[in-house]
Amino acid sequence: MSDSSGHLHMPIHMIDLIRKKRDRGVLSEAEIGFLVCGAAGESIPLEQLSAWLMAAWLNGLELDEIRALTVAMRDSGAKFDPSRLGKVAVDKHSTGGVGDKTSFLVAPIAAACGVAVPMISGRALGHTGGTLDKLEAIPAYRTALTLEEFEAVLQKCGASIVSQTPALVPADRVLYALRDRTGTVESPGLICASILSKKLAAGLNALVLDVKTGSGAFLRKREDTEYLAALMVATAEAAGTRTVALMTDMGQPLGAMAGNWIELAECVGLMRGNRPVESEDLRELSLILAGWMIHLGGQAETPEAGYARAEGAIVDGSALRIFLEMIAAQGGDVLAFDDAHFHKPGATRVVEALETGFISSMDTTMLGWAVQRLGAGREKAGEPVDPHAGIHFHARRGAFVEKGQPLATLYATREAMLAEPESLLKRAIVFSATKPETVPLVSRIFTQDDAEIYLRNAVR
Amino acid sequence: MSDSSGHLHMPIHMIDLIRKKRDRGVLSEAEIGFLVCGAAGESIPLEQLSAWLMAAWLNGLELDEIRALTVAMRDSGAKFDPSRLGKVAVDKHSTGGVGDKTSFLVAPIAAACGVAVPMISGRALGHTGGTLDKLEAIPAYRTALTLEEFEAVLQKCGASIVSQTPALVPADRVLYALRDRTGTVESPGLICASILSKKLAAGLNALVLDVKTGSGAFLRKREDTEYLAALMVATAEAAGTRTVALMTDMGQPLGAMAGNWIELAECVGLMRGNRPVESEDLRELSLILAGWMIHLGGQAETPEAGYARAEGAIVDGSALRIFLEMIAAQGGDVLAFDDAHFHKPGATRVVEALETGFISSMDTTMLGWAVQRLGAGREKAGEPVDPHAGIHFHARRGAFVEKGQPLATLYATREAMLAEPESLLKRAIVFSATKPETVPLVSRIFTQDDAEIYLRNAVR
Repeated sequence: MSDSSGHLHMPIHMIDLIRKKRDRGVLSEAEIGFLVCGAAGESIPLEQLSAWLMAAWLNGLELDEIRALTVAMRDSGAKFDPSRLGKVAVDKHSTGGVGDKTSFLVAPIAAACGVAVPMISGRALGHTGGTLDKLEAIPAYRTALTLEEFEAVLQKCGASIVSQTPALVPADRVLYALRDRTGTVESPGLICASILSKKLAAGLNALVLDVKTGSGAFLRKREDTEYLAALMVATAEAAGTRTVALMTDMGQPLGAMAGNWIELAECVGLMRGNRPVESEDLRELSLILAGWMIHLGGQAETPEAGYARAEGAIVDGSALRIFLEMIAAQGGDVLAFDDAHFHKPGATRVVEALETGFISSMDTTMLGWAVQRLGAGREKAGEPVDPHAGIHFHARRGAFVEKGQPLATLYATREAMLAEPESLLKRAIVFSATKPETVPLVSRIFTQDDAEIYLRNAVR
Repeated sequence: MSDSSGHLHMPIHMIDLIRKKRDRGVLSEAEIGFLVCGAAGESIPLEQLSAWLMAAWLNGLELDEIRALTVAMRDSGAKFDPSRLGKVAVDKHSTGGVGDKTSFLVAPIAAACGVAVPMISGRALGHTGGTLDKLEAIPAYRTALTLEEFEAVLQKCGASIVSQTPALVPADRVLYALRDRTGTVESPGLICASILSKKLAAGLNALVLDVKTGSGAFLRKREDTEYLAALMVATAEAAGTRTVALMTDMGQPLGAMAGNWIELAECVGLMRGNRPVESEDLRELSLILAGWMIHLGGQAETPEAGYARAEGAIVDGSALRIFLEMIAAQGGDVLAFDDAHFHKPGATRVVEALETGFISSMDTTMLGWAVQRLGAGREKAGEPVDPHAGIHFHARRGAFVEKGQPLATLYATREAMLAEPESLLKRAIVFSATKPETVPLVSRIFTQDDAEIYLRNAVR
């Protein structure tokens, strides 16, 4: 065989792709395609894939390889086609944090402002919560929709939040499980391709990335986080999706609640017009993210105009109406939100401040582990979670608290599960005599141009 | 649990060993032991082993890790115990070449001089021949002996050449097959551990390493070959085996013959006292290697004295007698050596020189492939070989040949298999108008002290 340029198509062998990456070579689009197809179809043995992954982890991937990997993975299985919705399809993705529940706000807000939000989400793992686990705290809510059901909910409500179906991005399922077992998770290129392939398989026109920084972030170093943000923007744009990344603060849990049901209740409260001071950062970040979604979705000239429209959708109740409609369309019982007795944790404990002073910082990862150990999260994939477990934070970073003042209320599955999280919480919250400096909620924004300039100058 | 020093024995997880090597850490003896035991027992998944192998390939292994790996692999299965032989057990190992048949000379010579030679050998693969395939050219010769049969032949003859039994060094069987599939073969540390573990499982007191250099060598760069030689000596010594490495010339095939049966016939001819000029390098190198074996085996004060004893064992016929006894003891029909019609290649062709001049160099790897393509070798493990195929070289490097003078005689399985090897042979042999410089047969010797000095100064 020969292509139009007269080059012969030589057969590709996985062993040569391993050697090429091992020797710091750059794989072609065809070679990446072969690898991804062989991963998805299980025709390449896992031991060969893992040797390649380790070589890629250690020697890195070029931008062209990351783009090819992302596109090949995106196209490795079934895809959702939002074109029949007659709207621009926009989604938001967060790199994960503690109390990070903006999806429940931005999805209905953006839908209320005229964009379609086909959101395919993940589950809790380690110290971060999972959107699907939180939604499943609503009685009878179904996250596992078929692509047809997904489309029907989107037609009806403009937004739908579902789980990954096995047919979507099979290459990532194989590669992610392998990376987890072979110490090859924390590679910017592999992370980028894994995140984006799953998001872009929903056929998005635009994507807003919420890249967390600070003590609760997935990547601990600021420069790694910046690089990942820029890389994801440049890669998604190269794959044909308008994309922006906001670097946002995860130096403390987002909002007052971290858990499952209590996070949903916090969001519904905000959409009902409540403005507790502990939830203000959640409300503000959600409006900023939704503003960008509305802007990229062509429903506002600027992100600021999008922000204004987003706030309008909270104030006029349209976001709440869409959220409840979506829950009902996915089988969920919305009456739970009006049932003051629905939240029934197995055990409750109020933790008081041991000293007087300002809360100067929080180890948010440690707080995430506290939430997980209360029963709200899981250590291994497949474990059940307790919908009612979690932490209600009464004081935020920068607050002045008196000794004995309530810091947080813990909700656990059982009494015996309170002690360790209480100890983690006390170690995680650091006091000081002086008020700490304010940390901006959004510290940097990467548009396509910003991302390309950053990557040109980045030394990896 | 705690050991005598009071340290806790923490459970070891393979994922942590992968991360450690990925992050340029140094594995402890216990960690290496865990890995090797898990490889041998197939309790560690292949994809985890291959990720570790790639990390080790790229980040390298420290001397202590290589020693621990070698010892753990050596001890991963059954071992041969030569202590009941009542003699010092000495072996020779070659990194492989074309026409490299010194085993058939050094084993009976050293045995004739009073040392035991328990030799566990390998098969042909790629451009290099295999001792076992050559021996199997003898009708009815059995290479697959049990350890009991091996010991009986050694008791009777002082030397035995057999194949690896499945019970010996199971860790190497798993790791070597995996390295072959995952692009992790050419790592000095992994090569060293693989070679030595198999040799040392025979319980050797001493080992002579023949490390090939030049155009037919396994490693192409002189400095890589030197490093491997020093590494193997230091590692084997650290594992308790007296070891020396000789770096020897593989810039042309060793001796006149390359194939299977014809190589054995060349050796028997030398032991019968024949001295053809084309076999002189083979005779000389075999005497040097055997001299070292006899010296390290305590049967000569110096390697030079060992050389003299070795030559005596050829001259007095004792080496030949032991060789024929060993063949008979392993079921082989020694009458073949007296049957002028035994060598029956399917097709024969004499290749003549296309020009007049000195043979200035040879691409020995290409000559090895010519031998393989004639039918004498194999491309994939498990393929059969033709005992009668091969090449008889009539002119050696440095010789002056006239146009039309016979360069070599090719023996192939079929007429159709002659053309490609002939073309390879003609490309591999380079002519010049002036006589090339002489290449020393042995260019460097690494004793334990030499090896340690070399490794201290080596920058890897």
